[in-house]
Amino acid sequence: MEIKVLHQVMEWNQDVSAEVRKTLAENRVCLINVMGSPGAGKTSLITGLIERLRGAFSIGVIEGDITGQIDAEKIAALAIPAVQLNTDGACHIEAMSIQRILPQFDLAALDVLFVENIGNLVCPAEFDIGENFRLTVLSIPEGDDKVAKYPLMFTDTDCLVLNKCDMLPYFDFDLARVTADYRGVNPEAPQFEVSSRTGAGLDALAGHLAARIRAALA
Amino acid sequence: MEIKVLHQVMEWNQDVSAEVRKTLAENRVCLINVMGSPGAGKTSLITGLIERLRGAFSIGVIEGDITGQIDAEKIAALAIPAVQLNTDGACHIEAMSIQRILPQFDLAALDVLFVENIGNLVCPAEFDIGENFRLTVLSIPEGDDKVAKYPLMFTDTDCLVLNKCDMLPYFDFDLARVTADYRGVNPEAPQFEVSSRTGAGLDALAGHLAARIRAALA
Repeated sequence: MEIKVLHQVMEWNQDVSAEVRKTLAENRVCLINVMGSPGAGKTSLITGLIERLRGAFSIGVIEGDITGQIDAEKIAALAIPAVQLNTDGACHIEAMSIQRILPQFDLAALDVLFVENIGNLVCPAEFDIGENFRLTVLSIPEGDDKVAKYPLMFTDTDCLVLNKCDMLPYFDFDLARVTADYRGVNPEAPQFEVSSRTGAGLDALAGHLAARIRAALA
Repeated sequence: MEIKVLHQVMEWNQDVSAEVRKTLAENRVCLINVMGSPGAGKTSLITGLIERLRGAFSIGVIEGDITGQIDAEKIAALAIPAVQLNTDGACHIEAMSIQRILPQFDLAALDVLFVENIGNLVCPAEFDIGENFRLTVLSIPEGDDKVAKYPLMFTDTDCLVLNKCDMLPYFDFDLARVTADYRGVNPEAPQFEVSSRTGAGLDALAGHLAARIRAALA
């Protein structure tokens, strides 16, 4: 019975994500699903990308959290439209939540909608929320065995961002191992090495995203 | 319908966790449920505790992971009985899995069974696996907002371990904020500051656990 219901949730999610994708396409909005562990630095990364992309695109953000509005306040402080989604215990975002939130934005005026998923390296990867592409964030302090241990998050992504690379000297982190493991499950998608704190690598990542956004909006 | 089934899983888990607890009590085994984010350093912490506790107690470990056996190999290399539990995608361990694994150990010869839960700051806290007590690991690089953003993991624990404290000079981490947030949701349980890499604080934590294990086995 458990399996049957999981299947129903997934089918229902699939239907709704298709509707979300249609609404976004009609309004020429590109949705980027940002995923990663708690503390990987997703909010800081989004903040750094907003700085670099806001000159070219009109940007909004949906902040997903179990509870609270800490992250949405950080985004709103940048004068960027932000909506806080509280899942009240759920460990991932489903397409239904995005569908309900979209009317909170002026979609006609928007180019890019970042969704910061719940901090979790497992379940968010299983749920299509209607995104144009996915960005997985892995931070150096989490360790170099994470691709091997949580493969789906790295298989079903369009871009891997290694964050907190300024911390490489302080951790036993084998960059070559992560890259090899990533290539093993995902031969095509690019990998970027950045530090949201120092800004290193963010220009290159923003350039890549800008090209993908333009392609999605074309 | 979704809510009804979730309720059934929880009830079923509750029944099985009571059976696990009974089996462990009959065999005088103390089960410690170790939880935290991916990369918080749970395996290294368990390794450090094994070094300090193995003189006094006979120890076994269940390593929970989505896939692979990286962590169980590390424990087995210490000549400690280890079983790798692969959840094949599930983001937490349920009591049913522990019940099925217990016969793999010589329970009569065992005093302590560590269970390293799936790296996840959300769902593991919702599932009683028959443990005597819970240990939540939060590492400094994850940031000081985690208690506020993932409260259940810190509310329903018996001990908070702040790990990677040797990294405090390199991160903007407000220790007082974490302690205050933790006290807000959990006024009683102790907090330890450790570094599995340097060994700092591990003797104090091991001493605390030894006293709790003795009380559980008395």
